[in-house]
Amino acid sequence: MSNLKIAIQGVPGSFHHQVALANFGEETEILPFNTFELVAKSVATGDADFAVMAIENSIAGAILPNYELIDRYELTIRDEFYLPIAHQLMALPGQKIEDIHEVRSHPMALLQCKSFFAQYPDIILKDDVDTAAVAKQIATEKWTGIGAIASSIAAEIYGLEIIGKNIQTVQSNFTRFIILQSQKETNPSNPNKASIKVTIQNNKGGLAKLLTLMSDNDLDLSKIQSIPVIQKPWEYAFFMDTVFEDYVKFKQTMIEIQKRFGEVKIFGEYISRK
Amino acid sequence: MSNLKIAIQGVPGSFHHQVALANFGEETEILPFNTFELVAKSVATGDADFAVMAIENSIAGAILPNYELIDRYELTIRDEFYLPIAHQLMALPGQKIEDIHEVRSHPMALLQCKSFFAQYPDIILKDDVDTAAVAKQIATEKWTGIGAIASSIAAEIYGLEIIGKNIQTVQSNFTRFIILQSQKETNPSNPNKASIKVTIQNNKGGLAKLLTLMSDNDLDLSKIQSIPVIQKPWEYAFFMDTVFEDYVKFKQTMIEIQKRFGEVKIFGEYISRK
Repeated sequence: MSNLKIAIQGVPGSFHHQVALANFGEETEILPFNTFELVAKSVATGDADFAVMAIENSIAGAILPNYELIDRYELTIRDEFYLPIAHQLMALPGQKIEDIHEVRSHPMALLQCKSFFAQYPDIILKDDVDTAAVAKQIATEKWTGIGAIASSIAAEIYGLEIIGKNIQTVQSNFTRFIILQSQKETNPSNPNKASIKVTIQNNKGGLAKLLTLMSDNDLDLSKIQSIPVIQKPWEYAFFMDTVFEDYVKFKQTMIEIQKRFGEVKIFGEYISRK
Repeated sequence: MSNLKIAIQGVPGSFHHQVALANFGEETEILPFNTFELVAKSVATGDADFAVMAIENSIAGAILPNYELIDRYELTIRDEFYLPIAHQLMALPGQKIEDIHEVRSHPMALLQCKSFFAQYPDIILKDDVDTAAVAKQIATEKWTGIGAIASSIAAEIYGLEIIGKNIQTVQSNFTRFIILQSQKETNPSNPNKASIKVTIQNNKGGLAKLLTLMSDNDLDLSKIQSIPVIQKPWEYAFFMDTVFEDYVKFKQTMIEIQKRFGEVKIFGEYISRK
């Protein structure tokens, strides 16, 4: 799988970069973009073969705007990847934790390391937009006294020293990434998981009936999230992940839902990695 | 309702500030904090009487970490507030849209104004952590050529000129805020809406059965979101908002759920504002 072009969001050293390497190997060409939208676009135009996109965090839940991008750029989920989140506190080489008066990172990363910093009440925690970008800045600006929370790859790339290892509070925390492709590519065979969006009329107990139908057809639900349909307040839409053993039964149930409840959109059929 | 102390996240001029004024009047004292955690803490300790907290965006969905704060600081939702999101493009007085080469704002605000900026492909869009904080920086640093997307209150407070009015793509976009209080305070009487968390065993069709029970008892579902229970992979937890007419029936159903499915936690009982 060499010479594949993989689109990621963020600078080199980001968690997206880490997943791209783990999934496609060290030989792949990484195309870094500033926004998720540019990532989606690059796959739609064919500039990138695949994209790696964070879709869900065990603390923050689903990243809904990314579903909207999959929808709008007509992409397909071809695989998923669970990355255990390990946060490293890093600074310029030679700096000790006592020298640090400020730590900057993504709000989610700061949140995930709260207990660690409770021991250091004098360290100011400051929100930034990206974990690896702070590491890069510390290295290029030679900032002393300032730390970053980022991945160990970021420390390696930017030559920073890890002064706090695996400082996340919940050790089993993960981020779920999806691998995206354009709809022209074929999906993996024998899928046992699918990500779908169902729009149903807001009649009494509509969702209860829908889930009963799914359960009766042995479709397990591994995720559900309602999304308000602003322009049509009488409709409800749900993002769901469903896991199944019988692919034919899954397909038949989707047709049945379409007939009885409303629109079904399949974002991808793939193999569960959990 | 004068002299109440209201905790908000963000600088003066933020959307939280706007909701605090709309909800409690111009006479209230605003306590601004850098993080949602400090906001929650200030209500728990009694430093603030109430807090205003964004909990859901019609584009991005629920802000799950804020539920965790309500849980941990033992707060209660006493009310909700739907703020129609209106984004204003602002810059130093005298600047015209042709002078602007860069616009900084929160990623969500930039996303919501994408179509507007499609007309100005030369303007670079840059993520920042806060909408109003950029407005403040432009004013204090006297930055020319740089624009902020923020609320009209922010333009007023920092003396900026609005050069693009209501530039959001979806005009009916809103953010849902909740008003928080400590559990010692009494809740409003005659509630018709509740925010709950239910933890159920992952048996086949568990959620379908739970929702059927709720529907049979005339509890409408206005929101649902599954959250993975990391440490206990055999359990599922759901955040739900439910709307009802009969409060007694609601209470009885919660007891029934507790008996048949698992733990129920009520984050607040209040009056629906939608």
